[in-house]
Amino acid sequence: MEKKASTATTGVEIGLDHDRIINLNMGDPTMFEPFWREFGDNATVVIPGWQKMSYFSERGNLCWFLEPEFANEARRLHGIVNNAVTDGRHLIVGVGSTQLIHATLFALASTEAHHPVNVVSAAPYYSMYPGMVDFMKSKLFRWAGDAAAYRGDDNFIELVCSPNNPDGAIRDAVLGNEMGKRVHDMAYNWPQYTPMQGAADHDIMLFTVSKATGHAGTRIGWALVKDAEVARKMVEFIEMNSIGVSKDSQVRAARILKVISDGYEFPNPEGVGQFFHFGRRMLADRWRRLRQALDASGRFSLPRFSLQFCEFSKEHAETYPGFAWIRCEDQKIKDCEAFFKSINVFTMSGRRFGAGAEFTRISMLDTDENFDIFIKRITYLD
Amino acid sequence: MEKKASTATTGVEIGLDHDRIINLNMGDPTMFEPFWREFGDNATVVIPGWQKMSYFSERGNLCWFLEPEFANEARRLHGIVNNAVTDGRHLIVGVGSTQLIHATLFALASTEAHHPVNVVSAAPYYSMYPGMVDFMKSKLFRWAGDAAAYRGDDNFIELVCSPNNPDGAIRDAVLGNEMGKRVHDMAYNWPQYTPMQGAADHDIMLFTVSKATGHAGTRIGWALVKDAEVARKMVEFIEMNSIGVSKDSQVRAARILKVISDGYEFPNPEGVGQFFHFGRRMLADRWRRLRQALDASGRFSLPRFSLQFCEFSKEHAETYPGFAWIRCEDQKIKDCEAFFKSINVFTMSGRRFGAGAEFTRISMLDTDENFDIFIKRITYLD
Repeated sequence: MEKKASTATTGVEIGLDHDRIINLNMGDPTMFEPFWREFGDNATVVIPGWQKMSYFSERGNLCWFLEPEFANEARRLHGIVNNAVTDGRHLIVGVGSTQLIHATLFALASTEAHHPVNVVSAAPYYSMYPGMVDFMKSKLFRWAGDAAAYRGDDNFIELVCSPNNPDGAIRDAVLGNEMGKRVHDMAYNWPQYTPMQGAADHDIMLFTVSKATGHAGTRIGWALVKDAEVARKMVEFIEMNSIGVSKDSQVRAARILKVISDGYEFPNPEGVGQFFHFGRRMLADRWRRLRQALDASGRFSLPRFSLQFCEFSKEHAETYPGFAWIRCEDQKIKDCEAFFKSINVFTMSGRRFGAGAEFTRISMLDTDENFDIFIKRITYLD
Repeated sequence: MEKKASTATTGVEIGLDHDRIINLNMGDPTMFEPFWREFGDNATVVIPGWQKMSYFSERGNLCWFLEPEFANEARRLHGIVNNAVTDGRHLIVGVGSTQLIHATLFALASTEAHHPVNVVSAAPYYSMYPGMVDFMKSKLFRWAGDAAAYRGDDNFIELVCSPNNPDGAIRDAVLGNEMGKRVHDMAYNWPQYTPMQGAADHDIMLFTVSKATGHAGTRIGWALVKDAEVARKMVEFIEMNSIGVSKDSQVRAARILKVISDGYEFPNPEGVGQFFHFGRRMLADRWRRLRQALDASGRFSLPRFSLQFCEFSKEHAETYPGFAWIRCEDQKIKDCEAFFKSINVFTMSGRRFGAGAEFTRISMLDTDENFDIFIKRITYLD
């Protein structure tokens, strides 16, 4: 510990700032703020006191609390990026994709079944899935763990997160298509994170502005749903859970998506103000620095991704996930999360994702300042 | 039916507009829009694209997704109106008071109990309570009906809605204070609806901007909670349910509450722009017209309320609930909701509130135009 104290002393000079806690355990997407500071003038939203007072957005719509301008801009952006089929799909808005996962489970579970439906996802799976499924102790569904190890009956729902949180892998359902039901959580299926491979075409696809644009605080997600009855039951859930979704945030989200789409449909000569390109450049730089620092330490490894042709940028592109899924290769370190905690970097243990303590997950989407300190701390590890 | 057709013909001239459906079955508070159009200049909210992006509002706060300016304005308004004790209370924000009811049930139920806790409310009770409690088929709690008829064990939660939806009555818990737990749903405890009787001081009190200010579309509610552990579990629920609450709507709600408070703390000489006085005048006028029209018809009755001293307005005041709880006294009409439906006025049957079909509930908070047509249709009943 004496050695550490001395490092801390020199740390002040080189910017290690040892006592400061760097919290990278949640995927708070504050990295994107500089883009919106620089190019976001048109994204400013103004709502007079008398507007958007009603519960209703469009009484005739199956999703009666959906603001038409938000629906239009979400469909428009999907069309430009070509990352999901929207034609003939119901668009359901939710309080983040989190509320939509609950709505989806409610919609897919049978209220007549004698046993709860099993909910599974291939490990490593998003750390919140088990808790989200089980915390209400519903008789409609229950968490049944790793999809790859599933040996239960045909009555299951597989949550397919692609690109996957925590490890960035592109995934298909691991359980057969003939049985069960699938929900595709596509929060990270955007060009800053992964090469676009054409429009995804699944029964239920979930998205969120948090990861698409960086606006986590707006709490707006959306689902593209093929089946009208499933869509209707999702709306029923949202009605019972919160009687709809903030109109103010829908209006704001519409504006934000519009600015991104306009940046591509009406580009300026310098190509500035193109959001996905900005995000991609930042993530590419961060991943380069992270790989360099971890390689130099010799104690950690990261997932490797092959180059793929991105149909959006029309070039071969790397994968730059929003999280780094770090594996500790040093036999002396038994608990990777605890190791990072010892240098005041908060991460989330692999155990939370159905994997081992040799893994930990680190957000790549935090502020420049926090990311810089994090990289320096790895670089100057004892 | 021939007689009806002839009424419809004359109806066009006197504004009955028979074919138009007047939907008064939900409490959509659009009545307040004219106030915000006239006096709401300062309530306009402007949010630049780069603001409020993070999940977090205040990391150190137990309710880490609560915008401080919203908390401050909610506490300030309670102080001015003196309708609820806020000192020493935790303030928890939710997606309307609806999400907060779920959060409260989750927080009060024991995860270790072998049986679900019974949830009750005295009939006539808010129509959504039974569905909200049971729709997830949770093993934590279950709907057990009318509190006044409750004969179950001491493990219960009583929902006390006061002033009560649907009938406007001021209520205390009907089950003893020595056992069970209580949640006070005080959505309508504001001076436009009911004479203020001093600061309510219960363990858990729920409020919502929907009914306080008319901004249902913002989906912002708040809870005042005495016990820190209950507050912590409510936050846990909201985390699992939606990872927090729209910041945009919190910022907007803060602004709206501020305009109301400013109207009383810094009144202008004419006293205009005082929201509760505006709402009270409108409701007084509507209730006068409704009572007149129903009395004239001789077929319906309404609850009667005694004059009480309002500590906010410092005068004796009537009660003007946000809903009219109509009882049909005509023996030929068996189903009051169906009767109103036959004149294209949609209401909500007493059966939905644990009462009989001789009752129906009608929103008093809709637009002037809809209310006018509704009154005319009663006035010109066959």
